[in-house]
Amino acid sequence: MKKVAIQGQRASFHDIAARYFFGDEDIAVENCPLPFRNVFESLKNGDSEYAVVAIENSLYGSINEVYDLLLEYQPYIIGEVYLHISQNLVGLQGALIQDIKKVHSHPIALAQCEEFLDKELSEAERFEHSDTAGSISDVKKWSDTKQAAIGSRAAADLHGLSILAEDIETNKHNYTRFVILSGEKKTAPNADKTSIILNTPADTKAGSLYQALGTFAKRNLNLLMLQSRPIIGKAWHYMFYLDIAASVDYEDFQAAVQELESQGCDITILGSYKNTQNQAYKA
Amino acid sequence: MKKVAIQGQRASFHDIAARYFFGDEDIAVENCPLPFRNVFESLKNGDSEYAVVAIENSLYGSINEVYDLLLEYQPYIIGEVYLHISQNLVGLQGALIQDIKKVHSHPIALAQCEEFLDKELSEAERFEHSDTAGSISDVKKWSDTKQAAIGSRAAADLHGLSILAEDIETNKHNYTRFVILSGEKKTAPNADKTSIILNTPADTKAGSLYQALGTFAKRNLNLLMLQSRPIIGKAWHYMFYLDIAASVDYEDFQAAVQELESQGCDITILGSYKNTQNQAYKA
Repeated sequence: MKKVAIQGQRASFHDIAARYFFGDEDIAVENCPLPFRNVFESLKNGDSEYAVVAIENSLYGSINEVYDLLLEYQPYIIGEVYLHISQNLVGLQGALIQDIKKVHSHPIALAQCEEFLDKELSEAERFEHSDTAGSISDVKKWSDTKQAAIGSRAAADLHGLSILAEDIETNKHNYTRFVILSGEKKTAPNADKTSIILNTPADTKAGSLYQALGTFAKRNLNLLMLQSRPIIGKAWHYMFYLDIAASVDYEDFQAAVQELESQGCDITILGSYKNTQNQAYKA
Repeated sequence: MKKVAIQGQRASFHDIAARYFFGDEDIAVENCPLPFRNVFESLKNGDSEYAVVAIENSLYGSINEVYDLLLEYQPYIIGEVYLHISQNLVGLQGALIQDIKKVHSHPIALAQCEEFLDKELSEAERFEHSDTAGSISDVKKWSDTKQAAIGSRAAADLHGLSILAEDIETNKHNYTRFVILSGEKKTAPNADKTSIILNTPADTKAGSLYQALGTFAKRNLNLLMLQSRPIIGKAWHYMFYLDIAASVDYEDFQAAVQELESQGCDITILGSYKNTQNQAYKA
C-alpha cells in the first residue's frame, strides 16, 4: 500500500486525481487539512511516501502557494494528472430542484455555477464551505431535502446521494492539473516532460530570458508552460517555472542546461515525467 | 476634484497610494467594497474618473484577479505607485504591549507579522478582518486597552491611536505596486514604460514566445515584467502580460509592435506611463 498525502477529504478532486494515478486498490490516502503546507510536511516527515497537489486550473491560473512550496521543499515531481472538472447539484434521494432552499459548496464552485444558480435556484440561499466534498457529506448528515451541495459525482456516489442536475458549471473548459510528488528522486522511464525553475543572472532584462528560452528553442525543445514568480527579498526580480517537452535524460535537454549554466543561469530540476496533457480524466 | 475609486476604506494602503499619486487635496475617494470588480464597474459607469488597484506584491506575486479584470474592462493605465509596506501594532493611547489579549488584522498582515506575534504576543488571540484599516477603526470603536490591530501608521494617525510597535513584519522587502486607471486613453508626456497583453499565434511552442521577446531584445527594449495567464476556454494556452521599458510613442517600440503583428501576434496596449519602480513611498 502506497501512503499518499492529499489536501481535502474522500472524493475531493485531489482524492480523485490520486486514485486515477495510483489505482484505487493500491493506496492509503492521508487527508490533510488546509493549508497546502501540511501536505508537503507530511511528505518531508516521511508520514507519506507520495503527495498529490493541484498546481494549475485552466480558468483560475497557477496556484501560487503550491509553486512557492515546490521551491521551498523541493520534492521530486514524478507524474501528473489532468482532471476535466464538472460540477453537479447533489441532494438527498427524492429531493426536487424546485424545493431546494439552501445550496452549499466551495466559493469557487459556487462561482463556477453562478449562471445555473441564478436561473434555476434564484431564491435559494448560498453557503460557502472549505471544500466541495465536505459540503456534500454535510448535506447527507443534515438529511433535509431542502438542502443541496455542489461537487463531484464521486462524492455524491460515496454518500449515496442523488445528482439533481449534472454539468452545471458555466464554462465547460474547466481543467485542473495535479502533480504527483515523491521525496525520492526518480525519473519515469517514459518521461517526456521536465519541470524546472530558472533563475537568470540579470532577470529584469529582455535579453536574459530571451537568451535562456533560445537555448531550448534552437534545439526544438518546446516550452509547454511558463510561470513567473517573485524572488522573495529581491523586489521586482523574477524566477521562472518552465515545463519543457523533453526528458531530463535527453542529450539535447542536458546540453541546453549546460549552456544555461555557462551563461550564469541557476537551474533547479523539479522532476521529469510522462506528459499526460492530452489524456484528461472526467471528474 | 478628481473622483478616484479604490477598494477599501480611508487610510487603507489603496487610499495611501491614491493620495501619493494625485495629492491629498485634490481628490474625492470613492471607497468600494470587495471584490475588485466594483472598482472597475465604478470607472466604467462614470461614477469615478480614475481608479487605483494593487496589481503585484513583492512577496505574494501577481494579483491574478486584477490582471483578468484589466483584460475584461480594458481601462487605460496612466501611472503607477510603489509602496514600501510596513506593518505596525496599533492600540489605544496608553495601552501596553504586555497587556494585549486580542490582535486584529487582515490574514495576510497577520501572517506577515507571525514572528513578532509568536515572540512578543504568544498568549494573544488573533482575529481575521477583511482589511487592515477596518481592524484599526474597530479597535478605536471598542475602546479597550487589551485589544490591538495591525496596519499602517496612516490609519493609526487617522483614528488618533498609538503605535505600540513599529515595522513588525518579518520580511522587510514588502513592496506593493499599484496602477492608476482611467477610462480615457492618454499617454503621460514623460512615459517610459508600456504595459501590453501579448497573444502569440501558437503559444505553447518555445519558438513563439522566444520570437516575440526577440523583437524587443534586438531593439534593446528591456522587459521589466512578464506574467503568464491562462486564456479562458483554451485550456493550457497562455497569454502574456509584459511591461516594456519604452514609451508607446518611441519609434523602436512601434516597430517592434508592427513586427509582432506581422508574425501573427495580437497586441493589446494597456497604457504607457512613467516608470517609478525606483521611487517607492513608505507606507
